[in-house]
Amino acid sequence: MRRGPTIDDVAELAGVSRGTVSRVLNGGHYVSAASLEAVRQAMADTGYTVNQSARSLVTKRSNAIGFVLSEPQERLFEDPNFSVLLRSCTQALADQDVSLVLMLESSDADRDRILRYVRGGHVDGVLLISSHFGDPLIAELAEGGVPAVACGKPLAPGDVLPYVAADDREGARQMTRYLVEQGHRRIGMISAPQIAGGQERLQGYQDVLGRKALKRLVVSATDYSQEAGRQAMAKLLKASPDLDAVFAASDLLASGALVELRRAGRRVPEEVAVGGFDDSRIARESDPPLTTIRQPLELVAREMVEVLLRRIDGTDDGPRILPTELVVRASG
Amino acid sequence: MRRGPTIDDVAELAGVSRGTVSRVLNGGHYVSAASLEAVRQAMADTGYTVNQSARSLVTKRSNAIGFVLSEPQERLFEDPNFSVLLRSCTQALADQDVSLVLMLESSDADRDRILRYVRGGHVDGVLLISSHFGDPLIAELAEGGVPAVACGKPLAPGDVLPYVAADDREGARQMTRYLVEQGHRRIGMISAPQIAGGQERLQGYQDVLGRKALKRLVVSATDYSQEAGRQAMAKLLKASPDLDAVFAASDLLASGALVELRRAGRRVPEEVAVGGFDDSRIARESDPPLTTIRQPLELVAREMVEVLLRRIDGTDDGPRILPTELVVRASG
Repeated sequence: MRRGPTIDDVAELAGVSRGTVSRVLNGGHYVSAASLEAVRQAMADTGYTVNQSARSLVTKRSNAIGFVLSEPQERLFEDPNFSVLLRSCTQALADQDVSLVLMLESSDADRDRILRYVRGGHVDGVLLISSHFGDPLIAELAEGGVPAVACGKPLAPGDVLPYVAADDREGARQMTRYLVEQGHRRIGMISAPQIAGGQERLQGYQDVLGRKALKRLVVSATDYSQEAGRQAMAKLLKASPDLDAVFAASDLLASGALVELRRAGRRVPEEVAVGGFDDSRIARESDPPLTTIRQPLELVAREMVEVLLRRIDGTDDGPRILPTELVVRASG
Repeated sequence: MRRGPTIDDVAELAGVSRGTVSRVLNGGHYVSAASLEAVRQAMADTGYTVNQSARSLVTKRSNAIGFVLSEPQERLFEDPNFSVLLRSCTQALADQDVSLVLMLESSDADRDRILRYVRGGHVDGVLLISSHFGDPLIAELAEGGVPAVACGKPLAPGDVLPYVAADDREGARQMTRYLVEQGHRRIGMISAPQIAGGQERLQGYQDVLGRKALKRLVVSATDYSQEAGRQAMAKLLKASPDLDAVFAASDLLASGALVELRRAGRRVPEEVAVGGFDDSRIARESDPPLTTIRQPLELVAREMVEVLLRRIDGTDDGPRILPTELVVRASG
C-alpha cells in the first residue's frame, strides 16, 4: 500500500507529542484548544488520513461488526430467516456507517480463527446468530470481554450475553391455543430443543397442553432442516397415528412435515392441521401455505444492532423480548 | 478486553529493543541468535500472544481475506453459484488457516466502507465476486495496491486485476456446436453481457453462428435472475417465433426461459431445445433438467485463493482459464 503521512509527521508539524495527536483522533479529550487547532491544521497540511490499523490501537475501533453464523454453511442458504437477519442487520449498521462482515463458524478451527480475528480488533463487536447449546464461542467471547449480542436466548450456562429474541414461549402458546380452539384434540409437536429459542417454544406448547400427558406427542427434530422435519413427522405418525394437528418449531420443519403427511396420504388441514413458527418465505410458498407465528425478525435485527452499539459504547442492556403474532393460512 | 503483556513487556524482560521484538514477530530476520532466543523465552515467560491489531502494523497481515460480493444481497441467496464459491473459497483458505470474511457491496456507501476496511489492513486481500461493468471497486483496489483477484474476466478498462475464470467463450462454443449438431437451425441466445464472462459467452455463440445474421435471435437479459430470463425469452419468442433452440448464458436465465416456454405452450425439448451455462443445482432441479455447460467452480475458487495468496506474498500471476464441459440432460 501507499506510504502516506504518519501520526509522527502530524505530531512533528504540529509541535506536539504523539500522544496529543492520539487524543485528538480519539475525540479530543484532555487536549488544549491551541493544540487541537495545531493538530487539525497539521492533519490538513500533511493530508493525513486515519489509518484504521493504527487507529484501532488508539480508539480500539475498526468500524466493523462481525455477523457470526454458527451453522454449517448450507443452512445460510436453506433457512430464509438468515437472509432476513443479514439484510436487516446490514441495513441497520449501514445507517450508522458501520460495516458488516460475515463469518461462518462451522468447525472448531473456524471458531479459533474467528476468536483470533475478533480479539485482534478487526471488528468492534459480534452479532451471534443461531448459537447451539454449549457453543464455546459464547463463553469465550464473554470471557475475552468482546461486546456481543445473541439472536435468541443463548443456551449457555449463566447470564453471559445480552440477547434479542421474539417471545418464543408466548408465540408457542398462541399457536397451541389456536389449534385447541379449532377443535383439535391430539396436537403433536416437532420441537428443536437444541437451538436458541427451541426450549421456549416447547415450554409454550406444554404451558397450554400440560407436560405429562403428552410425551409421546412430542418428537425432537435432529436439526432445523426440512429433512429433519420430515423424519420427525414420520416418527410422530408412528407413535400417535390418531393425531389431528401438529405444531412444528419452525416453518422449515413444518414444510418437512407437509412432505411426510402427503407421503402418508393425510390431507392437510382436513385430517391433520399443521402450524409453523417464523412466518418466513417458506410459510407463504409451501403447499398449502402455513398457518404460523410471525417473528418480527427485521425488528430483532435492528434491536440487536442497537444493543450491540450501545454495549460497544459501554452501556449494558438487559435482554429484549419482542412480541409475536398468529398468522392464519390454509394449513390449519 | 483483558490487558495482557505487551510487546514492551517482552522487550524489557528480554533486554532488547522494541524493534528487535518486532523483527522476531516478523519472521526473525536481522536478529542475532542470542536475541532471538531471549525474545522467545520472554514471550513464553510473559505469556505474550500476538495481538493482531499491533501485529498488523509489523507484518501488515490480518490472516483474513475479504470475499466481496458486488451484488444485491438477494442474489447471494438466489444464485447457487455464490454458495459453491463461498464454500470452496472458505475451505481453501481454512486449509491455510486463513479466515474468510464476507462483505456485500450493494451500494456506493457499501463500497466506501469496504475500501476503508480493506485499506485499514483488516484483510490482507480481496476475492472479488461478480463485478459489474465499470465497478469502481476494481480500479480503486488496484490503485490502492490491495492484493485482489477477480472471479471471471473483469470488464474494467485495462489489465488491472488478475482473474480466474472458466473458459466462457469455448464453453459457449461447445453448447452452440452441440445445438447445431442436434439439427437445430434457429438457435436464439439469452445473453448477459454486463456481467463478467457474459461477453465471452456471447462471443462463443457468435463464433459458431456468425455475427451478422443473428441480431434478432439475441436478447440481453437485464440481469442474471430467473425473472430476467423469463422476460428475455418472451421477447425472443416475439422477435423470432420460429426458433427451435435457445442458449441462455446461465442456468438461472435458462430456468426463467423454461417458465416462459411453458406459458407459451412450447414443449421442451420437442419444439424448443434449451441449453444453460453453469451446471449449478438449478440445472439438476429444473423441469426438465437442463443440458448445460459445467463450470468447474470448486476449482475456480481454489485457484483464486492460490493466486491471491501468491499475490499477497509478492508473486504476480497471469489470468487462469479453466476448461468447461458439456453436460447433456433432458432439456436439449
